[in-house]
Amino acid sequence: MNAASRRTTYPGASLARHQRSMGDPRLRYPLWPTLPRGCPRTRTEGVDFPLEVDYAYEETPADLFTGPVRRAGQDAGLERWAPLLPPLAAPGLGEGATALLPLGDGVWIKDESRNPTWSHKDRLNRVTVSAAVHQGAPGIAVASSGNHGASAAAYAARAGLRCVVLASAGVPPAVASFLQAYGAVVLPVPENSRWPLLNEVCDRLGFHPVSNLTRTHTGHPFGAEGYKTIAYEIHAELGAPAAVFVPSGYGELLFGIWKGFVELRRLGITTRLPRMFGCEPAAGGPLTAAVRAGVPAAVVPVAPTDAYAIDCAAGGHRAVRAVIDSAGQALMVTDAEMAYARDHLASQGIWAELSAAAGLAGLRQQSASGAEFDGPVVCVSTSSGFKGLGVGDVPLEAVEPTWATISRVLKASGIA
Amino acid sequence: MNAASRRTTYPGASLARHQRSMGDPRLRYPLWPTLPRGCPRTRTEGVDFPLEVDYAYEETPADLFTGPVRRAGQDAGLERWAPLLPPLAAPGLGEGATALLPLGDGVWIKDESRNPTWSHKDRLNRVTVSAAVHQGAPGIAVASSGNHGASAAAYAARAGLRCVVLASAGVPPAVASFLQAYGAVVLPVPENSRWPLLNEVCDRLGFHPVSNLTRTHTGHPFGAEGYKTIAYEIHAELGAPAAVFVPSGYGELLFGIWKGFVELRRLGITTRLPRMFGCEPAAGGPLTAAVRAGVPAAVVPVAPTDAYAIDCAAGGHRAVRAVIDSAGQALMVTDAEMAYARDHLASQGIWAELSAAAGLAGLRQQSASGAEFDGPVVCVSTSSGFKGLGVGDVPLEAVEPTWATISRVLKASGIA
Repeated sequence: MNAASRRTTYPGASLARHQRSMGDPRLRYPLWPTLPRGCPRTRTEGVDFPLEVDYAYEETPADLFTGPVRRAGQDAGLERWAPLLPPLAAPGLGEGATALLPLGDGVWIKDESRNPTWSHKDRLNRVTVSAAVHQGAPGIAVASSGNHGASAAAYAARAGLRCVVLASAGVPPAVASFLQAYGAVVLPVPENSRWPLLNEVCDRLGFHPVSNLTRTHTGHPFGAEGYKTIAYEIHAELGAPAAVFVPSGYGELLFGIWKGFVELRRLGITTRLPRMFGCEPAAGGPLTAAVRAGVPAAVVPVAPTDAYAIDCAAGGHRAVRAVIDSAGQALMVTDAEMAYARDHLASQGIWAELSAAAGLAGLRQQSASGAEFDGPVVCVSTSSGFKGLGVGDVPLEAVEPTWATISRVLKASGIA
Repeated sequence: MNAASRRTTYPGASLARHQRSMGDPRLRYPLWPTLPRGCPRTRTEGVDFPLEVDYAYEETPADLFTGPVRRAGQDAGLERWAPLLPPLAAPGLGEGATALLPLGDGVWIKDESRNPTWSHKDRLNRVTVSAAVHQGAPGIAVASSGNHGASAAAYAARAGLRCVVLASAGVPPAVASFLQAYGAVVLPVPENSRWPLLNEVCDRLGFHPVSNLTRTHTGHPFGAEGYKTIAYEIHAELGAPAAVFVPSGYGELLFGIWKGFVELRRLGITTRLPRMFGCEPAAGGPLTAAVRAGVPAAVVPVAPTDAYAIDCAAGGHRAVRAVIDSAGQALMVTDAEMAYARDHLASQGIWAELSAAAGLAGLRQQSASGAEFDGPVVCVSTSSGFKGLGVGDVPLEAVEPTWATISRVLKASGIA
């Protein structure tokens, strides 16, 4: 068998077995069909509980975690971890295996801008679009004004499915091009119309939803499974870190990474677990609100913020569980704190979107308040600077092409 | 030794020994200082000959090519291939180890948009900025209006060096933000002033040039060395392909990939070599001109083209050598052919800049003329769609948030 044909099979069959309620872990549902509106038996008037995926962990191949993060002659994507993911029925784009970069003082940046559409969302969409393919849906639908929508469109295109993106009118110009790049139908509608229309597209057309349909966030039951591969990759390079700081909107990423480490412990690969820090814009803060109030999830008002990728009113129970179970914390970071962190990353050669720098901003906040960590700390940088607000707003002003002028500019910049 | 401290050393010492003239391979120069203006002894009135790097190949570690492309617990970047690169004195950003994606029919896309600044240029700049660090330069200077300049700025920032970018005023708005993101001094000047001023910045300030200073292209003597790691990675996944199609401006990338395969043959890792196809905008075509005329390098007029990343008037001898020595071909592709290829890539989930699709455009041209290849074919896609002209020019028009309206839009798009 040559390399090309070998790449059409998965290295291992999926061990996914059930959907399990996060409202009551005794409640299990079959793996198929996916339940797009959370656990139907535990929801209350105020809270919808998500589902997660259960595996036949005892059948995990003994060598799954001993090899390199990326192997030659294998598909470069999430196939690497196929046994502990739902079936990867949709073709991949080589998602994952992103770089982990040292920032000094024991701090590491997990640079998720190195994914196929330059954000962490590709890990989620590989798995959720696979569910759409598995269930025979003619298309997928997503409510998003940025990374999630474009990533979903890319995976839908790759799988030959149609894609409808319910977006907002005010997305940054470069992101508008990004959303439209992969052939999706992009429909900008008012924020409060997005979810009713998403329901309608799914119900009427049989499209598979790959984003949230509920009041508090439940999202796709499989989405966080894609994110947990970040934990596997971090562990392969560093072991279990002392803490992980994660930009947090709905909190799927935060929970996914946590779940990955919990699985590593369950499988005997690590004995240590990191503390999980969910870093959300101070303009909103549904995770902070839920943790403070001791409730499973909260909905809050959101003031204006430039961190548009994570400015969520509705939180979800997954994030709360990650924070509580890991003895972590929910942190609110201001736009100024995120901008400072973003600028620091740029000074180290990493151009991140404002929202993407929320993790590092959270760590700086903790460090300033005297927190210390007994081991390496990882900040997840979720996305590329190309997606920021204000990108394209600073044109280059021509300078007179003489040494006298240029020398003056250089002097003003502290050079020469 | 823990993982973090292990990452501060290279897996292997550099075996680089000399700079060798490509004008006369009998002429060798010491490895240091790098010769930024090509081979001083073979230049003629019309042609400057570049240098390449010679290694103590006989000392290559026996297991260098047997491991995975990316290993856990190691720096994720070009360190992987350190013995066959110049010394990596500048810190990295996890460049390389990009995804190789099947496009069907034996065609593969090497997706270089997965690098730290989302183009292939990061492989070059890791190596050239390392030369600046090794030689103790206070900064680097580069003439570029896009990927090369931003990538150089990122690596300079990472290394703590200053960076001056001589750019053009007309770069796309998102790219203008990109160029300014890493703290470089960006000076837009008329095209024909860029190189004289680059010389002046280097001569007066002692800055290290990481782009070209000569009439026909010679570039940095180490630049193509970074690119050859693409060949190592392709070989690890596919073996030696039948052909590689490469977007070509000055042709450093084309030559670098070729050199990598030649080294693999020299080391006994492969017996087969690919044919190399340099794909340049039909608006110019210095490589095609040189190959047709049988000269070492050519300079041509350039008509308007949207493929601004590769619209070069001056060619270089490296590209000519890659085409001739590999029994390959220089191909001129029109903007329409590149746009068709770009749209095809997008339909497969890969959003590439117009120039980045030149490789696939070249392959389609060859296939249309009846060419067949005895084995897999790789097209290098050099850069992300975010860098294209026109990005940000297509705003999203809000639609009325009713099912009646949305249903009409979906019907018009062939959905429902």
